[in-house]
Amino acid sequence: MKWPLHGSNPQYLYEAAGLPFPKSLLDFSANINPLGPPAVLQKRWGDLFQGMGTYPDPHMASLKEKISQREGVEPGQILIGNGGAEIISLIGRLLSGKKVMIVEPAFSEYKKACLVNNCDVSYYRLSDGWEIHLDDLIGKLQGMDAVFLCNPNNPTGMYYKTSILLPLLKACKHENCFLIIDEAFYDFTAEYEPLVPFLKDFPQLILMRSMTKVFAIPGLRLGYLMADGGLIEKLSEFQPHWSVNSVALQAGEWCLEDENHIFKTIQFIQSERNVLFDFYQEHHFEVSNTAINFYLLRDIGLDDQYPLFEFLLKRGIVPRHTFNFTGLDGRWLRFAIRTSDENRRLMEAMQAWRSLNPLFL
Amino acid sequence: MKWPLHGSNPQYLYEAAGLPFPKSLLDFSANINPLGPPAVLQKRWGDLFQGMGTYPDPHMASLKEKISQREGVEPGQILIGNGGAEIISLIGRLLSGKKVMIVEPAFSEYKKACLVNNCDVSYYRLSDGWEIHLDDLIGKLQGMDAVFLCNPNNPTGMYYKTSILLPLLKACKHENCFLIIDEAFYDFTAEYEPLVPFLKDFPQLILMRSMTKVFAIPGLRLGYLMADGGLIEKLSEFQPHWSVNSVALQAGEWCLEDENHIFKTIQFIQSERNVLFDFYQEHHFEVSNTAINFYLLRDIGLDDQYPLFEFLLKRGIVPRHTFNFTGLDGRWLRFAIRTSDENRRLMEAMQAWRSLNPLFL
Repeated sequence: MKWPLHGSNPQYLYEAAGLPFPKSLLDFSANINPLGPPAVLQKRWGDLFQGMGTYPDPHMASLKEKISQREGVEPGQILIGNGGAEIISLIGRLLSGKKVMIVEPAFSEYKKACLVNNCDVSYYRLSDGWEIHLDDLIGKLQGMDAVFLCNPNNPTGMYYKTSILLPLLKACKHENCFLIIDEAFYDFTAEYEPLVPFLKDFPQLILMRSMTKVFAIPGLRLGYLMADGGLIEKLSEFQPHWSVNSVALQAGEWCLEDENHIFKTIQFIQSERNVLFDFYQEHHFEVSNTAINFYLLRDIGLDDQYPLFEFLLKRGIVPRHTFNFTGLDGRWLRFAIRTSDENRRLMEAMQAWRSLNPLFL
Repeated sequence: MKWPLHGSNPQYLYEAAGLPFPKSLLDFSANINPLGPPAVLQKRWGDLFQGMGTYPDPHMASLKEKISQREGVEPGQILIGNGGAEIISLIGRLLSGKKVMIVEPAFSEYKKACLVNNCDVSYYRLSDGWEIHLDDLIGKLQGMDAVFLCNPNNPTGMYYKTSILLPLLKACKHENCFLIIDEAFYDFTAEYEPLVPFLKDFPQLILMRSMTKVFAIPGLRLGYLMADGGLIEKLSEFQPHWSVNSVALQAGEWCLEDENHIFKTIQFIQSERNVLFDFYQEHHFEVSNTAINFYLLRDIGLDDQYPLFEFLLKRGIVPRHTFNFTGLDGRWLRFAIRTSDENRRLMEAMQAWRSLNPLFL
């Protein structure tokens, strides 16, 4: 049985689980904003038709300018990519043959991109509630060329503050080692502390962003990276011409104009998370200390969570398996926070599971 | 002055030429179907909005199946890419450090992809009306790992028939050298002879296709490659996850269902080409022996075509410069065949040029 590498596209998950594909389903396996895209996208969708007929701007000048103004970095410090996955793939090329450390559990694409480029990959595995123990992590930096850190973390949702990151960044600078921070989910939390100001003094810092999660446009593919200008030039050489399509470039510009969408999203996620987590506490499900729009969950009555996973799949409720997250290995399930109605239906299913599988504490 | 690498996005061309950007322009620099996309795309554009909200199928199973049925190859022999440019970039990775020959003049991305992957690149330059002299070309294959051939050729529009290609393919098999044929414009000519049947006996054969030209969707990015299954697996490892966006995948399926669009396109291009070429003959402009939707042109009264190029740009008519096509080096201009009205306005401009620059033959 070969589990899909990622969430979304649940047909492959049902196939791997050997279960019939249900007529209707609720997909909690993809971490997309439940509020959907900013309203402007639906309103102006018709206008995007024309853009399809001309080549995208290969320099992506207009969107780059917007990101530059928003983030306070030079356009030359920005690389726009065909989704975060392309950006990770370009970083992998840059690190070809180098010594790379991945802080795990983490998004599986880092490992894949490093291995395909013959990097010498080692892993720093978080345990104890996935806290970072700075001395321990810094002690392992010697000889490293790059460290990948997903923050807020996928799959746990944990957010590591600047008080943790700055000492790590300084240690990376001392080791002349890149610190690659994947901020794909940074805009789902009000706690986020901007790292952009550190780009100036730390050419080792690489910040990755995704625009597909918070703006709910994963089908379009759009992400960007901020780093030292020289590094951006090197990465750009590996990027295919016209890599980002016209629809994504224009949609991206419109999305960035709607700051209120992000504000509303943060409020909504926080409110739903409170409801869900009160329920889970009451019914003895353990959850990760997430700051964002997804969380890990386990029934404390089970070690291997497969029976719960299968129970939910059979009811058309799709969690994200954790078989390919090192250190989790199926002992947790990951759920996106979805709409109020969807979250309520998830809680109903969980309650049904608990009734059938009571805990005697 | 740094000329843009490709056609389209004329703002960069005007910038490089030091000319003000005109209020309205006619762009002959991009080789896109003047009939536009199949009607179904405009009709169903609204339906594509939903697809934006979910991740693209990473296996692209449905479009792959459609291409498989249409071309008579196994799905495992197909790789779908984020436009031809991504496919060329993936091939470049595969050929990393190898000895590669490019038949020139040719699309400039082959060279770029090879150089960024440290290939040992040599060039076989076509002259004498850009005919292939088989013995000469085959004589240069020894020790080569791969040959790039653009057919129909960009920028000349010349089409090389199977009577030329089959001996070349056999020689490549003998040398164990890949023959990479870029068929980006194959569907603009009724003369095209399918090479797919040779895939079975020639695992060295790699066929590249674009869906953005004939279906007029360059903004969406979509292309595919057909080759030996083992080779497809190797190339896929280099491809970022979700590389092809949902809009392109769905639009691609709809486009393939409209065979009539291609038929109408071929008829239209042929008819417009006849009108244009009669005009050019009468007014002493030399053109390439094109089979497709673009052609090279030179005023036989000029060696360097820059004065004509600038004359047209100033009138808002945008040819494709040929400074970065080795062997052309600005001594030709390339024009797409556009709509009847646009072609007529081009001829008017050419006539005005000729009146100002008469030839005394």
